[in-house]
Amino acid sequence: MELHTCLWNDVQAFHFNDVDFDILRRAMPGLTVVVHANESSFLEQAEKVEAVLAWDFKAAWYPQFTNLKWIMTPAAGKDWVEPHPLGKVKIVHGTFHGKLLSESLLSALLFMNHQMPRMLDNFRERAWDRDIQGQSRLLSDQTVMIIGFGHIGQDCAKALARMGTCVIGVSRSATPVSFGAEVYGLELLADHLPKADHVVLLLPGGEETERFMDETRLAMCKKGAYIYNFGRGNALYSRDLVASWEHLGGAFLDVTDEEPLPATSELWALKNMMITPHSSCIYKSYKEAFLKETLNYLR
Amino acid sequence: MELHTCLWNDVQAFHFNDVDFDILRRAMPGLTVVVHANESSFLEQAEKVEAVLAWDFKAAWYPQFTNLKWIMTPAAGKDWVEPHPLGKVKIVHGTFHGKLLSESLLSALLFMNHQMPRMLDNFRERAWDRDIQGQSRLLSDQTVMIIGFGHIGQDCAKALARMGTCVIGVSRSATPVSFGAEVYGLELLADHLPKADHVVLLLPGGEETERFMDETRLAMCKKGAYIYNFGRGNALYSRDLVASWEHLGGAFLDVTDEEPLPATSELWALKNMMITPHSSCIYKSYKEAFLKETLNYLR
Repeated sequence: MELHTCLWNDVQAFHFNDVDFDILRRAMPGLTVVVHANESSFLEQAEKVEAVLAWDFKAAWYPQFTNLKWIMTPAAGKDWVEPHPLGKVKIVHGTFHGKLLSESLLSALLFMNHQMPRMLDNFRERAWDRDIQGQSRLLSDQTVMIIGFGHIGQDCAKALARMGTCVIGVSRSATPVSFGAEVYGLELLADHLPKADHVVLLLPGGEETERFMDETRLAMCKKGAYIYNFGRGNALYSRDLVASWEHLGGAFLDVTDEEPLPATSELWALKNMMITPHSSCIYKSYKEAFLKETLNYLR
Repeated sequence: MELHTCLWNDVQAFHFNDVDFDILRRAMPGLTVVVHANESSFLEQAEKVEAVLAWDFKAAWYPQFTNLKWIMTPAAGKDWVEPHPLGKVKIVHGTFHGKLLSESLLSALLFMNHQMPRMLDNFRERAWDRDIQGQSRLLSDQTVMIIGFGHIGQDCAKALARMGTCVIGVSRSATPVSFGAEVYGLELLADHLPKADHVVLLLPGGEETERFMDETRLAMCKKGAYIYNFGRGNALYSRDLVASWEHLGGAFLDVTDEEPLPATSELWALKNMMITPHSSCIYKSYKEAFLKETLNYLR
């Protein structure tokens, strides 16, 4: 079997080199891995491609790919691989992101909860102020709401529930889970939002989630609540966050409504703000985790 | 019954006000709580004191306290309340610190592991460098060694083991634990130290632990290992850490060999160093947790 790959990326942890695919070649001696280094090399061979690993795929390409059966992608969201208009090509998404993202989210929650930006200032000023964390409550005594409760949201919820933290999941389907977390439908969001000390957005991109967490919903949050966006930037507009800032305790954004966030954005200067460059899944093990899932799928 | 208290403190989260003791008064109507605002007021009434809640107690005071039966202290270590020379006064230590410290330690481990000092620089420069975390491995895929494995060390180990992290405990007694952690005696330290990606010191103060983690032991650590001191500063001398710095990945110190750490210390300027002001147990719930344990003891 021949497997084509288009997995170049500007981010080192996401860029697959030819040698990365040895994990597949070693496990499946009959497999030929064709590594494309750019788009044109890939499109030239369109007709012979049956299976591809790709970061992105444009709907406009499908007519050339007459033999394409499936696309497997390491991307966490459904933003980059556009579906076949008639659904004739199967798109397979990895399920390994939850393990990565849940550790980054836990890190972010503890970082904000324990006043680490101020503690770092204290450190950099060579100061010894022992009152900065005096009002911190244990995360394990607090309530975290996760909006967007698919497999990634559930993995995050499990990690928090194991610590003893009260977790509320919110999703369209409101499917109950087997571990200790309440799950509600979107129609009950307004009832439960005021309970959360930390509100985590893990929503996919797209029209349906556009400006989901607007000024009205931010105002429903508990006074002093922390907001986290680890899903897609379109769900939380910068201007809504700026307008609501006095009501909130702070925010940790891994995604923003414009990426990279321009240096002129007001967000950078807000007190108790932390922003990371859409990096919540950037771990050394990313590529290996994807290739192991690919191997399972191939088998 | 009459309970005397000497629980003033410079740190807000550790300073007990008269109103804090209402939790005891409400639960035990027969109880009289005498709140001393300073040492001289306390020593004046020495003869009538049978039971005391105190941050510290000097051995030299015992002759005046002819009726003293027990001292209960909110301090985590045994450094502050000196024992009665003949052991005639019972000293009761709280067991609530593990829950607080384990959350701070988890926060510190994730902070260092996920390159947060560099990520914060990236943020402050309004930059969008997505390669900073590219070499980060999941904490849940790594090994953490905890040296000093009493109830606090075990609480920390449990929190890490729940995440899937491999935990090695090291203590004098090497008492096995019922959850997933290996425990070894000090004599096996050299065998296991090279396995740890993160080495956590949770040792008590005193002569026996003086300069425990010296240059020789730091050199036994894995190249690039992170060191954490959340016990007492005497176990890790600044000069040993400075001398070993090139071998290490970084350090997060909550305690230092001199406290407050002087502004002239070389530690402040080391790359990949984070220092917090002996604050790992500073949470809003500290006082309440201690008073609840006091109440259980009184009953």
